Amino acid sequence: MENFIYYNPTRIYFGQGQITQLSHAIAKDQKVLLIYGGGSIKQNGVYDQVKTALADHQVTEFSGIEPNPEYETCLKAVELIKQNKINFVLAVGGGSVIDATKFIVAAAKFKGDAWDILAKHADITGAVPFGCVLTLPATGSEMNSGSVISRRALNKKLAFMHEKVFPVFSILDPETTYTLPARQVANGVVDAFVHVMEQYLTYPQNAQLQDRFAEGILSTLIEEGEKVLTHPHDYDVRANIMWAATLALNTLISQGVKTDWATHMIGHELTAFYGLDHAQTLAIILPSIMEYKKDKKQAKLIQYAERVWQVDKTLDAETKVQIAIEKTRAFFEKMGNPTKISAYQLSQDKFDDIINNLKDNGLTALGEHADITPEDSLKILQMSY
Amino acid sequence: MENFIYYNPTRIYFGQGQITQLSHAIAKDQKVLLIYGGGSIKQNGVYDQVKTALADHQVTEFSGIEPNPEYETCLKAVELIKQNKINFVLAVGGGSVIDATKFIVAAAKFKGDAWDILAKHADITGAVPFGCVLTLPATGSEMNSGSVISRRALNKKLAFMHEKVFPVFSILDPETTYTLPARQVANGVVDAFVHVMEQYLTYPQNAQLQDRFAEGILSTLIEEGEKVLTHPHDYDVRANIMWAATLALNTLISQGVKTDWATHMIGHELTAFYGLDHAQTLAIILPSIMEYKKDKKQAKLIQYAERVWQVDKTLDAETKVQIAIEKTRAFFEKMGNPTKISAYQLSQDKFDDIINNLKDNGLTALGEHADITPEDSLKILQMSY
Repeated sequence: MENFIYYNPTRIYFGQGQITQLSHAIAKDQKVLLIYGGGSIKQNGVYDQVKTALADHQVTEFSGIEPNPEYETCLKAVELIKQNKINFVLAVGGGSVIDATKFIVAAAKFKGDAWDILAKHADITGAVPFGCVLTLPATGSEMNSGSVISRRALNKKLAFMHEKVFPVFSILDPETTYTLPARQVANGVVDAFVHVMEQYLTYPQNAQLQDRFAEGILSTLIEEGEKVLTHPHDYDVRANIMWAATLALNTLISQGVKTDWATHMIGHELTAFYGLDHAQTLAIILPSIMEYKKDKKQAKLIQYAERVWQVDKTLDAETKVQIAIEKTRAFFEKMGNPTKISAYQLSQDKFDDIINNLKDNGLTALGEHADITPEDSLKILQMSY
Repeated sequence: MENFIYYNPTRIYFGQGQITQLSHAIAKDQKVLLIYGGGSIKQNGVYDQVKTALADHQVTEFSGIEPNPEYETCLKAVELIKQNKINFVLAVGGGSVIDATKFIVAAAKFKGDAWDILAKHADITGAVPFGCVLTLPATGSEMNSGSVISRRALNKKLAFMHEKVFPVFSILDPETTYTLPARQVANGVVDAFVHVMEQYLTYPQNAQLQDRFAEGILSTLIEEGEKVLTHPHDYDVRANIMWAATLALNTLISQGVKTDWATHMIGHELTAFYGLDHAQTLAIILPSIMEYKKDKKQAKLIQYAERVWQVDKTLDAETKVQIAIEKTRAFFEKMGNPTKISAYQLSQDKFDDIINNLKDNGLTALGEHADITPEDSLKILQMSY
């Protein structure tokens, strides 16, 4: 196990009815900016719950955060914060709204060109404090300090991570997820599952607890993910999925270990060039990487096969690995995500552009061993077709 | 799953050499009070590492915190804080030193009789900030906000818990545990194991992740606990045990579920009346409670048998339960803790006093169903002889 520093001060209010906690979780004298996305919170009742809880607060609103939040949009919210002397921000939505809010609150206190926060990882000296009401379990952004922002004019999608943008609190009410489209629910399960796999499926690093916790999240997502398709109004199923998605990326399971993230890096390009959902790209790429790197990942693949899928321990190593890959693929398919590019009626004609873009973005040594070159990524794409 | 609020802001510096982090983890202008116990930190080199890291700080020392820390001793440290205008406290030691420090830092800011913090759960309005250097993995106090203090003059042992006494940081260097006596190491493993069992072995509560994490900690303690007996200088074994003991009681696995704690309550009396080690009392009482409550705990006992001990799923329920109890008992024995009172050459003549003391302390409805009466506790003691 490697040395690590773990810190996660976000307060979680979990459960039905917890949105009412907003009335005291934000001090009454704060000028609040409420940030949300395309307006789904107005259909599902969350907006009304939030406004009721904040009836005694002074609230300004900013809506229109896009999926894959846009830099230019964020800057408009920054202006609003400055003009209105906002001192607390409330993000209501999924990962995109929360990611955008993290950048907005940092940019609002930043001296200089805010783009440097993303492009140059300029140090952040302060941020407007913010909380979240999560409505879509998937990204884990509600309990970590990371954010990904797109700037379409420059064809860039960049990330930053900083302690100052941990949410002060996040409210997770599983009932807010009842009205989500089934596809978004299933995608969230796949996204969280792959987050765990990227931190877990590497090589043995003598971090037993991190492994056990990762396996526990994977098993939970498999069991509850299958249930949510047939029992969408089962509260406990929704609760288990919501808490699992948060713990999948609150950094607890990656402490002291090397991580992979190649699936996400290649997957991002499939979204950029083919417009596929994030979860679809992960469902496509992960099984191919498992196959392509099955020698270096063998020990962990076997552990995963035995502990997560209860594969018979007496089988030979190669068989266990193949079963593990097939089971993973079958799970993604069951969650509504075909695991081959061809299944989406797409051609291979963008592969060269994708590889060139990986090179342009410096993503030429991916994976836990930094040994996945652009040539390897091309082979992974071809295997994924 | 029940609603919950989870908050744990303690920063963890984990790994070899992390004591050097003290030099910047505590601001240079702070007047520091260093609190420790009987002086073992002077033999094992930890004291020297701490003093070296704090070479540029103004440090006052207070030593002599006892196992089961004493109220009167804590008050002396409170005086020292007030006299020396201390503004940061550093606890160096195990659970007793950290528990004492939590009470000391709260009492130092308390208006009125500090005993009320324990006896009346008086609200705490502030506390001197403090950090920890952990030297004995066992209690989890380094990453929670709970504390147990004894006042021998009144024959009382009382607990308090408050957000204001979370450590600001805790440093966990597995190498500091190499020189611990084997008995303390094994006791720490048993203590952490039973902490998990008290939160886990109740009844199914549809909290899948809390169950999986609990099982992960148990499996880790079993595997690594057995290894540490034969490989005391294996760094990763020490690291896994240290992190497991912290996560066993940092409250993550008890979110949203009812817990038991009957073993600890009865066990405390065995320490008070027979002078047994805390871990010895847990090793004695837990198997008896598993047996005595095997009907109400059956579903969880079977899950525990299958997932933690890999008991054959095709066996009948009663057999699985019996194997689970026997395996638990055997594990405690292997960790050097006999699981019967008679094995410690003690008689049954204190049982009546123990039951009377449980009654005096209002501990008349123990367990997750609050259905363990003093009469049940007596039967549990008799089964444990």
